[in-house]
Amino acid sequence: MPERKSKNITRVEHRVSIEDREQRNRHKGAVLWFTGLSGAGKSTLAIALEEALFQRGFQVYVLDGDNVRAGLNSDLGFSHEDRTENIRRVGEVAALFARAGVICISAFISPYREDRAIARRAAGDKFFEVYIDADVATCERRDPKGLYKKARAGEIADFTGISAPYEIPEKPDIVIDTSRQTIGSSVNALIDFVMARLRPTDAESPHSN
Amino acid sequence: MPERKSKNITRVEHRVSIEDREQRNRHKGAVLWFTGLSGAGKSTLAIALEEALFQRGFQVYVLDGDNVRAGLNSDLGFSHEDRTENIRRVGEVAALFARAGVICISAFISPYREDRAIARRAAGDKFFEVYIDADVATCERRDPKGLYKKARAGEIADFTGISAPYEIPEKPDIVIDTSRQTIGSSVNALIDFVMARLRPTDAESPHSN
Repeated sequence: MPERKSKNITRVEHRVSIEDREQRNRHKGAVLWFTGLSGAGKSTLAIALEEALFQRGFQVYVLDGDNVRAGLNSDLGFSHEDRTENIRRVGEVAALFARAGVICISAFISPYREDRAIARRAAGDKFFEVYIDADVATCERRDPKGLYKKARAGEIADFTGISAPYEIPEKPDIVIDTSRQTIGSSVNALIDFVMARLRPTDAESPHSN
Repeated sequence: MPERKSKNITRVEHRVSIEDREQRNRHKGAVLWFTGLSGAGKSTLAIALEEALFQRGFQVYVLDGDNVRAGLNSDLGFSHEDRTENIRRVGEVAALFARAGVICISAFISPYREDRAIARRAAGDKFFEVYIDADVATCERRDPKGLYKKARAGEIADFTGISAPYEIPEKPDIVIDTSRQTIGSSVNALIDFVMARLRPTDAESPHSN
């Protein structure tokens, strides 16, 4: 953890606790941290899951390149250092959403284990690593954005899976293999995961004791 | 606006609109941007307003030095440049919360007009500037954190109101004068503001047309 630079910050205790929020929303706040290669299906699944959870009454929000790279992280490029800072900031923002009681789905390649570990530390036990698994050959065949083609042609430097490493999650909380599963069954697996882990059952609720 | 450094970002359309979120939450997403001197009452009012709005069923979350300086902005100090970056990032994060349908109350001195203008641009018409107004003499008399004393003793450099400027909002959306109003009546004024501006009346709801 970097040492915090600012001093003279006095804590004023917040009066709405995370438990208050979770009780009212009837689900836990969490970070669902999607990681995987470009083309693995992170954004597609994140957005489909957001819609499905919203329809089921959840507070849910997707962080992705679309709403982060143009704003919060508009000062960052794709050097290793900037990628690390990109992921660090997203991890912190996702943790804020989780503490606000929201299920925050982040969809970034986030190829480095250490960067993902930093994001996990920011959110603590509210963090769930979701490995969107598809091998390079599959992703390159899909190439929905034409990026693999550009990377092969040398037009994009440090492209994950081609000219930069992707470090496979060692202990992901869930793996979604999009080379074998349809989008529909992938989303259903994610909904099941959320229902099991983030929606307290009656047995867990404070009233049943 | 700084030019965005990242390229090769393809937009995947989100399927839950802000209108969907607002309709379900029964209030608008917004940024309530509290600005004012140290000791003016920003944190106290932010936290009291958060509690009051939560109790009324709102989705609401406070961003302040407590949850931002230790995490997202732990790499930033108090130089003019770092303060500007601090406020820029908070503005972007607050805008994300607003787009997620949440009323985000930010409580930072944010002494510079240009910095606040950048935060406003991030959230667009969801941004409301809330000037927590108390003069330096009043704040110095309160000095809840002992910071004015330290600043007068030269132990804190660039202290807003003493050795660094505070640029008074020119067109705040609401002014709360905490040197004349109690905390209770200040919070009530803020609740009234939220109810009037962020809670759609029947006349505005889509069903009444």
